[in-house]
Amino acid sequence: MEKRIITISREFGSGGRTIGHLVAEKLGIPFYDKELVDHIALESGFSAQFIEEHGEHAPGKSIFSYAFAHQSVPGVIDGISTADILWNAQCNVILQIAEKGPCVIVGRNADYILKDREDCFHTYIHADKAFRAERIVRLYGESEKKPVARLDEKDKRRRVNYHHYTGRTWGKAQNYDLCLCSSTLGIEACADMIVSIIKKSK
Amino acid sequence: MEKRIITISREFGSGGRTIGHLVAEKLGIPFYDKELVDHIALESGFSAQFIEEHGEHAPGKSIFSYAFAHQSVPGVIDGISTADILWNAQCNVILQIAEKGPCVIVGRNADYILKDREDCFHTYIHADKAFRAERIVRLYGESEKKPVARLDEKDKRRRVNYHHYTGRTWGKAQNYDLCLCSSTLGIEACADMIVSIIKKSK
Repeated sequence: MEKRIITISREFGSGGRTIGHLVAEKLGIPFYDKELVDHIALESGFSAQFIEEHGEHAPGKSIFSYAFAHQSVPGVIDGISTADILWNAQCNVILQIAEKGPCVIVGRNADYILKDREDCFHTYIHADKAFRAERIVRLYGESEKKPVARLDEKDKRRRVNYHHYTGRTWGKAQNYDLCLCSSTLGIEACADMIVSIIKKSK
Repeated sequence: MEKRIITISREFGSGGRTIGHLVAEKLGIPFYDKELVDHIALESGFSAQFIEEHGEHAPGKSIFSYAFAHQSVPGVIDGISTADILWNAQCNVILQIAEKGPCVIVGRNADYILKDREDCFHTYIHADKAFRAERIVRLYGESEKKPVARLDEKDKRRRVNYHHYTGRTWGKAQNYDLCLCSSTLGIEACADMIVSIIKKSK
């Protein structure tokens, strides 16, 4: 079966986004990461900034507080939580994008949302903490929190959000076709492996 | 860092053993699967048959019953469970084998036992249930139990044993350098990917 759509789930700092970008470039197909945010904004009515901040969070107090502070957002006061509206918009956008043709989609639980499409290839990128800590400081700069605390916090949010909306365990090998440790294999090599598999599936 | 030792953890029926055999053959290095049993028998004093039957089980009633029915087995009545003696022997044998040089080791929690060696490459092979069910019937024949029940039972034993002795979650991507879905990728292709990675690490 030809694999046309590549989803990339990733630990924070593992280089999953860079790998996705390289794969899209090498295959000459569209790449969706931050680009997804604008589509979800259009679909949901939320601002791009709100989606950036809350899209991969589990529903929680902070999201509800935000929602009630912005009661002009459609649907918030009709018994559906902000987070659920965002999830529905995210599902619609990702399903529509997959219909359009070959692409690479990073994050946003796309592996689950597209689980019933046989033309999808689902990957998960992880790496050891030292590798990830060094990368986030180099790419995103220092912050008040220690790098390892930043990694733990972001991974936890993604894990909880994934489990809440999919019922699955984030990072469980069985949910993906391929899981790669980028600190062992190298970021370029991870991209090359995915490209090679996709080309062979044709 | 050159990777010389390849560990293969695998879901029952996923083809992990076949992949390990192919990798060892292509790299021209020793392959340890059933061969491990004889070494563990020598180290522990248990029979090869007992190790085959209980080596990847969690400690439980059946193992204790067996132990007390065979009180001539050394150590059983000195407050150490049969399963723990087996585990210690397994650790010693796998650590000794790794010291000898490059090899492929299938199963027996070798990824955990060798986690501190930087020259190891840890893989996990899984596959969808239909693929695995077809394979076990073809390779091992029919039995009273339905194939899916046989898969679930054997995977559960491996999972429980792994968690009991390592404290880790079996099949969690972060525990491995590479996780492959053999039903998506194909058994030969999985072997080729591992061989290619090992060759490039030199």
